[in-house]
Amino acid sequence: MKLVVAVVQDQDSNRLSNALTKHDFRATKLASTGGFLRSGNTTFLIGTEDSLVQKLLGVIRDNCRSREQMVAPISPMGGNADAYIPYPVEVEVGGATVFVLPIEQFHHF
Amino acid sequence: MKLVVAVVQDQDSNRLSNALTKHDFRATKLASTGGFLRSGNTTFLIGTEDSLVQKLLGVIRDNCRSREQMVAPISPMGGNADAYIPYPVEVEVGGATVFVLPIEQFHHF
Amino acid sequence: MKLVVAVVQDQDSNRLSNALTKHDFRATKLASTGGFLRSGNTTFLIGTEDSLVQKLLGVIRDNCRSREQMVAPISPMGGNADAYIPYPVEVEVGGATVFVLPIEQFHHF
Ligand code: NI
Ligand code: NI
Ligand code: NI
Repeated sequence: MKLVVAVVQDQDSNRLSNALTKHDFRATKLASTGGFLRSGNTTFLIGTEDSLVQKLLGVIRDNCRSREQMVAPISPMGGNADAYIPYPVEVEVGGATVFVLPIEQFHHF
Repeated sequence: MKLVVAVVQDQDSNRLSNALTKHDFRATKLASTGGFLRSGNTTFLIGTEDSLVQKLLGVIRDNCRSREQMVAPISPMGGNADAYIPYPVEVEVGGATVFVLPIEQFHHF
Repeated sequence: MKLVVAVVQDQDSNRLSNALTKHDFRATKLASTGGFLRSGNTTFLIGTEDSLVQKLLGVIRDNCRSREQMVAPISPMGGNADAYIPYPVEVEVGGATVFVLPIEQFHHF
């Protein structure tokens, strides 16, 4: 058994949840913020057999891969006109940070 | 030292908290959802000496064991009358998923 | 790589966040309660190279060390006058509980 800890952007969280269920992985979700990724993310805890770790990593990668996205310009608010960009810009969204942890014991009561 | 991660249904969370305190275990609680167990659960992080892991697992099992419970019928809402069951049913409640993780270092500042 | 799990009192959480960013550590934060420390704490998940673990522990200790603080008397509310202490008292604040966990795999997608 391994415990896989995956920090995922909120916008990919529901898609990943559904994909995990479809592939018979069971996850616990924790609301989390900041740091590894831009603000608003979800930390998934997923227990899995050693033999399924590669499959699980594939499901996470397929649903959370970092990619470019065009973002429409947002009107400047609160006098921050200096930072206003009046045309769509490409930003990086998504991405996941994943830790695979060894487990000494696993129990289900 | 070990780090024990226990995912517990919300209805057993307070009882487990009290039992851990009574047995001198200190836990940090994280609100979590879905996956390992039905919706609404709490993830406990509990650091403990190797020699106390079995005692800790016993406290978790005693307070969170999966069991059958009779649930009264709920009136159908929102037109979902097809799913209405007009008599009490037995459902499984409780249960805990527990990971015992090795620790390389433990510090208290 | 290691995964460092640090449970920190809320009052030190923002200062630690800023210090981690300044020292190029990236952390995910989870709201947590109780147990290791008095109520209201934040659990930081920080992935780091083995060679930087000691530096990271230093940053956590510098920003979250347990210390004495004078607390002004609070007027008794709700009839709990028996517990009212009419002069400033010294209480222990801060402190962090830190686990350093081994990682088998680390991925960033
Ligand atoms: Ni698939
Ligand atoms: Ni007991
Ligand atoms: Ni410094």
